[in-house]
Amino acid sequence: MTTQAFTGILSPVLTPFDNDLRPNGRKLAAFCKSLLAEGCTALAPFGTNSEANSMSVEERMDLLEQVIGAGVDAKKLMPGTGACALSDAVRATKHAVAKGCGGVLVLPPFYYKGMSDDGFYRFFSETIQRVGDARLKMYLYHIPPQTVQGISHDLIERLIKAYPTTVVGIKDSSGDWKNTEAMLKRFPGFGIFAGSEDFLLANMRAGGVGCITATGNVNAGMIRQLFEGWQKPDADQKQAHISTVRKTIQRHPMIPSMKSLRAAWSGDTAWLNVLPPFLPLTMEQGKALAADVAKLGCKGPEMVPAE
Amino acid sequence: MTTQAFTGILSPVLTPFDNDLRPNGRKLAAFCKSLLAEGCTALAPFGTNSEANSMSVEERMDLLEQVIGAGVDAKKLMPGTGACALSDAVRATKHAVAKGCGGVLVLPPFYYKGMSDDGFYRFFSETIQRVGDARLKMYLYHIPPQTVQGISHDLIERLIKAYPTTVVGIKDSSGDWKNTEAMLKRFPGFGIFAGSEDFLLANMRAGGVGCITATGNVNAGMIRQLFEGWQKPDADQKQAHISTVRKTIQRHPMIPSMKSLRAAWSGDTAWLNVLPPFLPLTMEQGKALAADVAKLGCKGPEMVPAE
Repeated sequence: MTTQAFTGILSPVLTPFDNDLRPNGRKLAAFCKSLLAEGCTALAPFGTNSEANSMSVEERMDLLEQVIGAGVDAKKLMPGTGACALSDAVRATKHAVAKGCGGVLVLPPFYYKGMSDDGFYRFFSETIQRVGDARLKMYLYHIPPQTVQGISHDLIERLIKAYPTTVVGIKDSSGDWKNTEAMLKRFPGFGIFAGSEDFLLANMRAGGVGCITATGNVNAGMIRQLFEGWQKPDADQKQAHISTVRKTIQRHPMIPSMKSLRAAWSGDTAWLNVLPPFLPLTMEQGKALAADVAKLGCKGPEMVPAE
Repeated sequence: MTTQAFTGILSPVLTPFDNDLRPNGRKLAAFCKSLLAEGCTALAPFGTNSEANSMSVEERMDLLEQVIGAGVDAKKLMPGTGACALSDAVRATKHAVAKGCGGVLVLPPFYYKGMSDDGFYRFFSETIQRVGDARLKMYLYHIPPQTVQGISHDLIERLIKAYPTTVVGIKDSSGDWKNTEAMLKRFPGFGIFAGSEDFLLANMRAGGVGCITATGNVNAGMIRQLFEGWQKPDADQKQAHISTVRKTIQRHPMIPSMKSLRAAWSGDTAWLNVLPPFLPLTMEQGKALAADVAKLGCKGPEMVPAE
C-alpha cells in the first residue's frame, strides 16, 4: 500500500455544455479553478455527475487537455477513464497518465449484466497491463445504482494483491454504509472515499480518506469544513447540516439540479444545458433552489471560509 | 408506416478477435457471407452478442467498412449504432447511413438508471435530427436484461408519430412474450422482431416480421426453415426443436458458447477469443458442445437446406 495520492473532498466536476450540446473546455477549466477555490481538495472530472458516459472518449480527452492546458494542476485530477470497451478504457487511462494526472477513477464495464468476478478482474487487469505505466494510480468506482453490478470485496483483494502500487483506492457510491465499513476493516491503508458527504464523518472516523461527492459542485466549502474539523465537538452537527443541504438539492434530479444552481449563481443560462437522457431545468427553478439553499448558508461560489 | 426494410432471420454477428483482442475485419466479412449462406436473411452486426459495447465506436465503424468493402450487401445490414453518448450514437448512425446500410438498431443510453420517457425521447429525437438523413431507418432495441430500463410503448408511439418513415421497427429482447404481443396489437405495420427464436412462431402468427437472434450465429438454417414454413402443420414441432437446440447452447454463457462452437467447427482457436468482461471457453468445451448439438441436427456451416 502506498501513501495516499488523494485525500479530502473531491468533486465529480459538472461539465458545461454550449447550447448545441458541445462541451465547453474553456468554461470547464474556469469551473475547475473555481471549485478548488471553493473548497475542493482535488477534482474528479468525468464522473457520473459530469455526464461523462454521455460524452465520447475523444470529447473527454480533449476536455482534460484544455483543463490542464489552462493551468489546473494535473496532480489534483482524478479523471474518470472507465468505459464498457477495453480499448476505450485503455486509451483514456493512458492519456490521463501521460498528462500527469494524480490518479484515475475506473468504472467496471457496465453493459452486460451477470458478469463474474473473474471477468471483471480480466477487464481491470488487461487495462492496467495495456497501460503499462508505473505512474498509474487507479481508484475503483463502485456504483451499483448505475452499473447494477458492483465491485466485490474479493475482487478488490485480488486486484490489490496483483497490483499493490497501482490499485490504491475506491469510491463507494453504493449508498450503503455497511459496505464502506466492511471495506475499511478488510483493506486498511486502501484509499476509501465515501461516494456522498452523507457518510463523510462516519468514513473519517472509521479510517477513510474523504469523499468524492456530487454536491462538491455547489457546496464544497461547507463539506470541506467538516473534513477539516471532523474531530471537533461540533462535527455531528455539521454533518447533519450538510446532509440537509444535500436533501434540498435532491429535490430535482441531481445533475440538472446542481446545474440550475450554478446557472442561478452565475446568471449564465448555458449552465442549464444537460445531455440526453437528462432534461434541463429552467432558470426559475434554479433561482428558487438557490433561495432555499441560501437559507441553509449555501450561497454559491465563495472561497473556503476560515474556521 | 413504410414497407418493411427487413424481415426474416437476422443474426447479431459474433465478432472474431485476434489473440491480442483486436477485432479481425477480414474474418468478420467472411463470417457475414457465411451466415447469409447458412440461412440468415440479413445481419445485425454490432449487437449484444457481437460484443459491440466492448469495442470503441471507431473499431465498429472500421469493421463495418471492411465488411461492406469485402462485398457484403449494405442493404442487408442493420448495424447496432446505439451508445451512451449522443455524439457517439450520431457519429455511428451517420456513418452507417452513409455506407448504405438498410437500417440501424439503436439502444437507449444505458448508463444512468431511472431516466424518464421524455429523456429517452430526447436522446432518440436528437440522434435522428442530427443525422438528418431521410434514408435513415431506425429500429429500436428493447433489451432490459442488459440496459435495465427498456423502451416503453408510449415512447414508441411518440417516436413513430414524430418520425413515421424513420422509426420503423423494434427488436424485443425482453424475453417477455406479453410485451411483444402488446406491441403487435398497438403498432400494426411496425417491424417487430422477436429477440429470440423461442418466440419466432408466436411472433409470426401475431403479425411480427421475424427474429433477430443470437443463435442465428450457429443455427441459422433450422431457424430459417421455421420462418419459411411457419404456416405449415409441423411448425410447432419445429419451434420446439429449435428451442431445444438453443437451450443446449445456453449451457455456457451465450457469447463464449457460440464462439466455442464456431471454433470447434472451423478448427480456428482464435474463434474462442472474447473481450472482457467475458471469459473464453476452451476448444474441448467447444467440441463437447458441438457433439451435443450435432445430435440435434445442428452441425455447423451448411447452406440452408431446401424444404
